[in-house]
Amino acid sequence: MSLNDDPNPISSLEPFFNPQSIAVIGASNNPDKPGGRPVGALLSKGYSGKIYPVNPARTNINGIKCYPSLLDIPEPVDLAIISIVADKVYSALEECVSKGVKAAVIFSSGFAETGPEGLAEQQRITELSRKTGLRILGPNCLGLVNTMNGVMASFAPIVDLPPVEPRLLGFASQSGAFGSAIYAASLEKGVGFNYFISVGNEADLEFTDFLEYMIHDPNTRLAGGYLEGSKNAGKLRRVAEDALKKEKPVLIMKVGRSSAGSRAAASHTGSLAGSDIIYDAFFKQTGVIRIDNFTDLIAFTPLFQTGKLPRGRNTAIISTSGGAGVFLADLCESVGLNVVTLGDQTRKKMDTALPFFASSRNPVDLTAAFLKEPAITPVVLRALCEDPDIDIIIGSLDFPLPADHPVVGEIIDICSNTDKLVLFSPFRFPGAPADPPLAEFKRAGIPVIFETMDAIKALSNLVTYKEKLEKRTLEKYRATRRSQSKPDLDYLLKPGQTLGEIHAKEILEKYGIPVTRQALAATPEEAVARARDIGYPVALKIDSPDIPHKTEAGGLKLNLENDDQVSSSFEEIIRNVKLYAPDARINGVSVQEMLPEGVEVIIGVTRDPVFGPAIMFGLGGIFVEALKDVSFRIAPVSPGDARDMIDEIKGAALLKGVRGKPPVDVDAIADVILRVSDLVTDYRELIEELDINPLIVYPKGVKAADAMLVVRK
Amino acid sequence: MSLNDDPNPISSLEPFFNPQSIAVIGASNNPDKPGGRPVGALLSKGYSGKIYPVNPARTNINGIKCYPSLLDIPEPVDLAIISIVADKVYSALEECVSKGVKAAVIFSSGFAETGPEGLAEQQRITELSRKTGLRILGPNCLGLVNTMNGVMASFAPIVDLPPVEPRLLGFASQSGAFGSAIYAASLEKGVGFNYFISVGNEADLEFTDFLEYMIHDPNTRLAGGYLEGSKNAGKLRRVAEDALKKEKPVLIMKVGRSSAGSRAAASHTGSLAGSDIIYDAFFKQTGVIRIDNFTDLIAFTPLFQTGKLPRGRNTAIISTSGGAGVFLADLCESVGLNVVTLGDQTRKKMDTALPFFASSRNPVDLTAAFLKEPAITPVVLRALCEDPDIDIIIGSLDFPLPADHPVVGEIIDICSNTDKLVLFSPFRFPGAPADPPLAEFKRAGIPVIFETMDAIKALSNLVTYKEKLEKRTLEKYRATRRSQSKPDLDYLLKPGQTLGEIHAKEILEKYGIPVTRQALAATPEEAVARARDIGYPVALKIDSPDIPHKTEAGGLKLNLENDDQVSSSFEEIIRNVKLYAPDARINGVSVQEMLPEGVEVIIGVTRDPVFGPAIMFGLGGIFVEALKDVSFRIAPVSPGDARDMIDEIKGAALLKGVRGKPPVDVDAIADVILRVSDLVTDYRELIEELDINPLIVYPKGVKAADAMLVVRK
Repeated sequence: MSLNDDPNPISSLEPFFNPQSIAVIGASNNPDKPGGRPVGALLSKGYSGKIYPVNPARTNINGIKCYPSLLDIPEPVDLAIISIVADKVYSALEECVSKGVKAAVIFSSGFAETGPEGLAEQQRITELSRKTGLRILGPNCLGLVNTMNGVMASFAPIVDLPPVEPRLLGFASQSGAFGSAIYAASLEKGVGFNYFISVGNEADLEFTDFLEYMIHDPNTRLAGGYLEGSKNAGKLRRVAEDALKKEKPVLIMKVGRSSAGSRAAASHTGSLAGSDIIYDAFFKQTGVIRIDNFTDLIAFTPLFQTGKLPRGRNTAIISTSGGAGVFLADLCESVGLNVVTLGDQTRKKMDTALPFFASSRNPVDLTAAFLKEPAITPVVLRALCEDPDIDIIIGSLDFPLPADHPVVGEIIDICSNTDKLVLFSPFRFPGAPADPPLAEFKRAGIPVIFETMDAIKALSNLVTYKEKLEKRTLEKYRATRRSQSKPDLDYLLKPGQTLGEIHAKEILEKYGIPVTRQALAATPEEAVARARDIGYPVALKIDSPDIPHKTEAGGLKLNLENDDQVSSSFEEIIRNVKLYAPDARINGVSVQEMLPEGVEVIIGVTRDPVFGPAIMFGLGGIFVEALKDVSFRIAPVSPGDARDMIDEIKGAALLKGVRGKPPVDVDAIADVILRVSDLVTDYRELIEELDINPLIVYPKGVKAADAMLVVRK
Repeated sequence: MSLNDDPNPISSLEPFFNPQSIAVIGASNNPDKPGGRPVGALLSKGYSGKIYPVNPARTNINGIKCYPSLLDIPEPVDLAIISIVADKVYSALEECVSKGVKAAVIFSSGFAETGPEGLAEQQRITELSRKTGLRILGPNCLGLVNTMNGVMASFAPIVDLPPVEPRLLGFASQSGAFGSAIYAASLEKGVGFNYFISVGNEADLEFTDFLEYMIHDPNTRLAGGYLEGSKNAGKLRRVAEDALKKEKPVLIMKVGRSSAGSRAAASHTGSLAGSDIIYDAFFKQTGVIRIDNFTDLIAFTPLFQTGKLPRGRNTAIISTSGGAGVFLADLCESVGLNVVTLGDQTRKKMDTALPFFASSRNPVDLTAAFLKEPAITPVVLRALCEDPDIDIIIGSLDFPLPADHPVVGEIIDICSNTDKLVLFSPFRFPGAPADPPLAEFKRAGIPVIFETMDAIKALSNLVTYKEKLEKRTLEKYRATRRSQSKPDLDYLLKPGQTLGEIHAKEILEKYGIPVTRQALAATPEEAVARARDIGYPVALKIDSPDIPHKTEAGGLKLNLENDDQVSSSFEEIIRNVKLYAPDARINGVSVQEMLPEGVEVIIGVTRDPVFGPAIMFGLGGIFVEALKDVSFRIAPVSPGDARDMIDEIKGAALLKGVRGKPPVDVDAIADVILRVSDLVTDYRELIEELDINPLIVYPKGVKAADAMLVVRK
């Protein structure tokens, strides 16, 4: 689908964010009612367009003329806010259509969230929107806020909060109450928002549509979201990729990690419960920063606002307490930042200023000496800034100085003239006000984050984001086809069928994936003939769609070296299988070339209800079954994605050669992943499941020893 | 060592906590000087004993008569606080001895933390203490605070803070600045302390001595600590075990998890950098609650103060926002709490009060309906309290009600009359004051914790602690010897020697550990003779202290079935090994019974610089080498410890039987762990390293196939 086919193009969201005129249907003078909030908020926040309260029982709302109905308004209306009982919403929407209203926000609840009847009523609304082009936010939502122009199309108490500068962050939420609480908490901590959208039941526009709007909107430099489940994973992927291109970080708090959480999320938003593991893979693949809590968003924002992306993970720590320094070093390393050993040159520079009992090692410990001699701090800071091996400097420092102390200006100067990311995370003695210089630092754009754990996590998120940005510029992170053409598989992919080894490998071969030579035999005699064709030694395997675990069924014989062994093994396999699964359908016994020993891996495909085909990689056998040590990416994948999948598993070291064995051909594994990606992209709607298990990997090359494919019903 | 041999018995610490009289040597009228703080603080915090300022340059400090020297004080002195320059400290201590002072707190810095000279001076102080019995806290410490009786023997600003009730928590810290910051932050969040001790350089008394005092002190119900490294691991273990017996939780923030952190911690306190992994094992083994941050201590305290230990991990969540409920469910499951499916009976009780659009599933979502009908909350809460399947109830609830609303009393009533742990963790809308009922709840002893993530972590810590308490009462968690006697091994354990397979297995056999039959051969002919004795098939292995990896060296031949194979393999092994390691010392080639296939595990012993012999368990081969999937416990271990070690590894599922294989004999593995524990306990000072690799495990029984032992130098 090209962007032009999108039923919800960005332009259609414009009337929500920049309406020339707003009607409030169900406007009230009672500020405790949802309909009583918007008019007052629009006025007090300086909305400069026209405001039309609508309520047949009133003539005046907040001092503005009130109309008995929408149709009585003499001028055009861009945006309608609807705050009336559920069963009157539909006809209000019809009036909106007649009036030529472009967009409607429906506060009213009583729809899908209440049961089948409400759902049916909501579906009528969806159909009306599809039919007429009227764009709808909600129902059952808190609405939308644009702090840039006073569009307070919301009844949440957040409309009363004063904005915080700079207003760079747009936030969309699938939970109204929790989302607005996040908004308020973030604002209080100094995070500046431009937009807030509570998406409610998503009868028309959904989370991703608003995310897309923000990514393409010049006012938004950073996008955040609270997500329970996406209704349009394809668009979400496209938007995430656009965001990366535009270098706008997207931070998403995706809930439903746990089984209870995922059940509750699905029932709460009525969205599909896509597997959280697949969401996680999606976030890694597209550079979306997955946050655990909104506190991660709060800490990330000031770091991002510096405009500095750390060049790497090398971190220096300055503290005034040995204990705090150790604590910080632990925190840094726990998120993958390197607390490096400092070079002699840098240490010498610091030692000129430090007293003998302080430490110029990393973490640098100024001790309480800095209290007597504040000039120590800029000397240390400058030395670290001049060290080319350092990317990040964290100061766990107190500044009990007046704001105009010369050292303060000196520190601001140093921080402003370095490309290193410098941040301060002092331990604020409770009750005591923050030291005056900290406000100066903030004003100068230097991040001051009191919540140290949040700050370190945010640093790690920022570095990971930076690495993702760099990866994007590498050729290998562009999705490329490995296979030349799309082979015709329609003759094999019959709905609902399970393809056994022979047919599944036939398909793999068409996509250029190396498979073992094999042939099906129906009798011991045939088996011997096939074995001679292939050449000894051979393996025999039962071919049955009903027997996924051949070893357990006694359906596998390896290392057969002559005709006699083949003939007797054939009979033994048939006997074993009939005992193990008397009703299993048997296509025959497959005779195969016997592969030399190698490392066994698995490449599989599962179909996620949200994201569609997801490719899995893991080490074979017990590693997958008992340790669940696997990685996922969503098709189509890039060569870089394929390499990331391989590197990501815990047992990756086993591929690099252990106990004197040579490393295996990781490129060849990546090649198979890419070809599988081609297959499931070409036949996206037909493939339910695919399993290459095992793929045997050698120091040079791979071979698929067994495979299975399930076609969708 | 029996308790009576402890050079630092608890009673000797008494004068620090309950002195009848205190002298302040270096007392000053300048409150900015360390010596200027204690006299004022002792007075203002109501210390009822005698106070004797000492300063030859003053006649009066804070209105109290000042003495020119300690020896001029006419009455006895229990505790001396010393705040003078480092080079005068020693003679002040000598005066303390002459005067019969029992305990001294040394604020002064300038000792071990400054380099070799300072260290030497500190060692003189240590010797003085050992010789005279004068107990010393410090030097280079912030001192000690007893809030129960106004003993403010500290110059930290925390002496000015008002106490918080109930004062149940005692805290010892190896970092003065960081520790007092933790104290202040915790106090502000409502945590009540009885004692705070900054242990400084630990010239005499150390962290563990103060921990022990608190564990045996009736005023302390809960002990906390900031630890960089223990100087007396044996005592730490004894104290941790005492704490468990007395059911007093010990929460320790142990830093130095990371390599940089551990280096810094070792250099900061001058303590040994024991491996953090071994500390972690120690904490698990002894039930010490390891916390990541002091915020974990802050959240734990109110939960503990309820006096309720949850019976299990089944958790019900009540929220007023679907989003918050999902978020909480995720958090709970991430720390191992079960967000269970509620039974029909409980749901029916709730449904009588809930509106149709609310949800009685877990998480229970009251929606905004509770605002109109506050009586919903007690109905839901009572239903959950009556459900025998629930252990913990978390309310993410707002209470916008007056404090005297009848619902408030009702909720307090329900919470007070249930044995379930109920806690409230509402999302506080920033800026807005907390709802009035919350203060009532707190007053009634119901935990209200705004920091939700901290609260959930604390819950998990409390449940884990409860489980540990229960385990302690089980017979299998008492350390028991498996071996009858202590065999004489002195003829084998020669300092610095590495014992190869044959001798190492000889030792294992003496401790009742099953080993493969084996015999050493020096020639091919001898090998054949040994093989016939043992019975075919056999394996041949090089026996050399210099070749730990026999396979890599070509020093291993398996499944030899006859004389010819044994003879030629012998020669091949010798050839291979000479090529691989021309200088290796070769004891011969070991002929061994060939074991049938089984699961390979490793049991090892490493010597930790702090804790001594630690026993390691892991799955064999690549699992240990590439995945580092191992567990540790410190010797001696109990049968329960041994089982925990086995269950703890990620690959534990492999022992339970995968792919149709039967489970292996886990009891037999545990038995070997216990016998190894006996061995390293008997020869604690002699064993540097031991490796049983592999131990082959069968459905019934185990056999050590190879072993190696290194004797300490």
